[in-house]
Amino acid sequence: MGSNLNFKIEKKLPGRLGRVGVLETPHGKIETPAFIVVGTKATVKALSPEDVQTLGAQAVLSNTYHLYLEPGDELVKNAGGLHKFMNWSGPTFTDSGGFQVFSLGVAMEEKANKFGAKKQETVNENICKEEGNTKLSKIDEDGVTFRSHIDGTSHRFTPERSMEIQHNLGADIIFAFDECTSPLASREYQIEAMKRTHRWAKRSLDRHNELGGPQSLFGIVQGGRFEDLRKESAKEISSLLFDGFGIGGSFDKEDVYKALVWVNEILPENKPRHFLGIGAVEDLFGGIENGVDTFDCVAPTRMARNGALLTKEGRMNIMNAKYKTDFTPIEGDCECYTCKNYTRAYLAHLFRTEELFAYRLSSIHNLYFVVNLVKKIRQSILDDKFFEFKEQFLNRYNSIKN
Amino acid sequence: MGSNLNFKIEKKLPGRLGRVGVLETPHGKIETPAFIVVGTKATVKALSPEDVQTLGAQAVLSNTYHLYLEPGDELVKNAGGLHKFMNWSGPTFTDSGGFQVFSLGVAMEEKANKFGAKKQETVNENICKEEGNTKLSKIDEDGVTFRSHIDGTSHRFTPERSMEIQHNLGADIIFAFDECTSPLASREYQIEAMKRTHRWAKRSLDRHNELGGPQSLFGIVQGGRFEDLRKESAKEISSLLFDGFGIGGSFDKEDVYKALVWVNEILPENKPRHFLGIGAVEDLFGGIENGVDTFDCVAPTRMARNGALLTKEGRMNIMNAKYKTDFTPIEGDCECYTCKNYTRAYLAHLFRTEELFAYRLSSIHNLYFVVNLVKKIRQSILDDKFFEFKEQFLNRYNSIKN
Repeated sequence: MGSNLNFKIEKKLPGRLGRVGVLETPHGKIETPAFIVVGTKATVKALSPEDVQTLGAQAVLSNTYHLYLEPGDELVKNAGGLHKFMNWSGPTFTDSGGFQVFSLGVAMEEKANKFGAKKQETVNENICKEEGNTKLSKIDEDGVTFRSHIDGTSHRFTPERSMEIQHNLGADIIFAFDECTSPLASREYQIEAMKRTHRWAKRSLDRHNELGGPQSLFGIVQGGRFEDLRKESAKEISSLLFDGFGIGGSFDKEDVYKALVWVNEILPENKPRHFLGIGAVEDLFGGIENGVDTFDCVAPTRMARNGALLTKEGRMNIMNAKYKTDFTPIEGDCECYTCKNYTRAYLAHLFRTEELFAYRLSSIHNLYFVVNLVKKIRQSILDDKFFEFKEQFLNRYNSIKN
Repeated sequence: MGSNLNFKIEKKLPGRLGRVGVLETPHGKIETPAFIVVGTKATVKALSPEDVQTLGAQAVLSNTYHLYLEPGDELVKNAGGLHKFMNWSGPTFTDSGGFQVFSLGVAMEEKANKFGAKKQETVNENICKEEGNTKLSKIDEDGVTFRSHIDGTSHRFTPERSMEIQHNLGADIIFAFDECTSPLASREYQIEAMKRTHRWAKRSLDRHNELGGPQSLFGIVQGGRFEDLRKESAKEISSLLFDGFGIGGSFDKEDVYKALVWVNEILPENKPRHFLGIGAVEDLFGGIENGVDTFDCVAPTRMARNGALLTKEGRMNIMNAKYKTDFTPIEGDCECYTCKNYTRAYLAHLFRTEELFAYRLSSIHNLYFVVNLVKKIRQSILDDKFFEFKEQFLNRYNSIKN
């Protein structure tokens, strides 16, 4: 069967696995590398689709687990699919639901803390539960039984069910159902989980093909922190007829780039690669250098709602008293809507008074920052200036933050 | 001294006090009658200035009491004034702070209930405290000492101080400092409060003239539910060189239109009249018919944040289960951004999941509804169809609601 994606590589980064490309989906092109903004529940938190488009985002990733529970995948299907339901006409992704099913404890924490976690950690840190079993989810060969973080009701995902749900949601790019393990899991457990993920990959692909339609399916490489397992997983997943690939799992910081090299040397060059749930500034450079085409991460919007603003000099906490009387924009040379029209003093006022507009203005700035940083990295590769740009940017970013 | 306002009456409503006009301010024209949207803390809750403009609003009213406390009127002055601080280039109003000073109990309730009061009452109902003294504010001839609802600190407003604060804020139209009484207050207390309001009106005007500048000052007519007092107040306030007039106080429903007639027959025809804090659908028709040029009210946005949506058939509670699967817009013939792009089912989903975008979409619809209803009423007067339009609209609006 032919893919509904057309992926063209325009330029490669010399001596590395990085590349610049264009990914064509049924809902438009994505110039890669690209940061995909997260719209968990069919809305990018605090933003309209027009805000998302204006800040330069090319695609939105929604979460299958959340949409399955609220408002339900059948309802989204009846609404005409995710695009129509949320009024976003560009490319969309949905994840497989696996990640959330294995990290329900965190989901409950999110629920309790409506405007996002207090700790501004990247999502991939400390989320996956050890050994695959938590009090709220139970795994077996066929699938996972879990309890809703909303009302405690029991539900079951299998690879087939994940495909059916994602077909109902109707995103352009969907993911095979996988098991996400902790970076602290034992080698024995990583092997067991990886092999199950491989069996589930085949079942996902079979059910996806039976269902037919215009969606494209990405297989997910797992294997934890072990070089041999990562390579085995990349080989196994590469051997299946996926339209692209996701690189999953949670990583200790130092392992990330090594793991990308192990995996991306094996994955077929002509298919797109998505790095699941990763998007810290350092990781964007490292990910792109080592062959990642697309990223998604909730950190920029979650940080924004907590008043942590991204700048070229590191994070700015808008609640710091000095910003109350600072009549300059977050960044003087930033072209985002927020920086062009509002001061730090106004943002400080909105955050202190808990005005809803605070979360929109801060989210616009942080997403613009990340989306456009990836665009600049892309351009630096086209201009043969990637390494200079990386050094210059990260020196400035880290110097003042630390 | 010449006014910075130019008010032209284009047409009068035969047999009534109503009129269609154009009010020119230093920041642009307001076609009257007009609904002025409330941006209490220098932001129309959940909306951007572009949202406010796009939905058709012509002017924004901010609250002096709130801005004095947060972020402080000196800070707003240093930011370049209210317009620049909040990025709204159209006409602005500030109230005098008097209303809030006398209704701090409600302000505290608002603070506790972040997304607005549960009871969807119009602001004017049950707000003003009896006999002018509450635990949190103490009135004397010179002014009012009150405690901040935020941190309990003690503050003092006098007519002069209100003028100084409103000059710092820099709105186009500002109001004299007045005492707002309860509709239940005794005749004796109403007389005392009214006479104090008249003395404060002169002091407000004197201080305003000393301060100079491009702002216009409106005097406020009080007098409660008593015909003789309302008329006395209208005569007294009319005799002072105000640029326009506010009609203050809280009313029992049946008294509103009578009081407007008593007052507006006396107020000079060639100056604009603002009805403070009133904006329920019925009151818009009644107010305009009886000579009101501008209204402000938080009810449309507060109701919106509670999921109460305005329709030509009355209020719709979007949390009603039947809307979960309703793939039609709030109103099929509504031209607002929300109705043109989103379904009731999507709104129901956003409200149930407490997504921030819910409050923006609902606020846009409700403000569009009210702002455009006033525009339609205006047009009906120009077309000599006011009474037909009123009967037709209110019949439909009340028939299904009741």
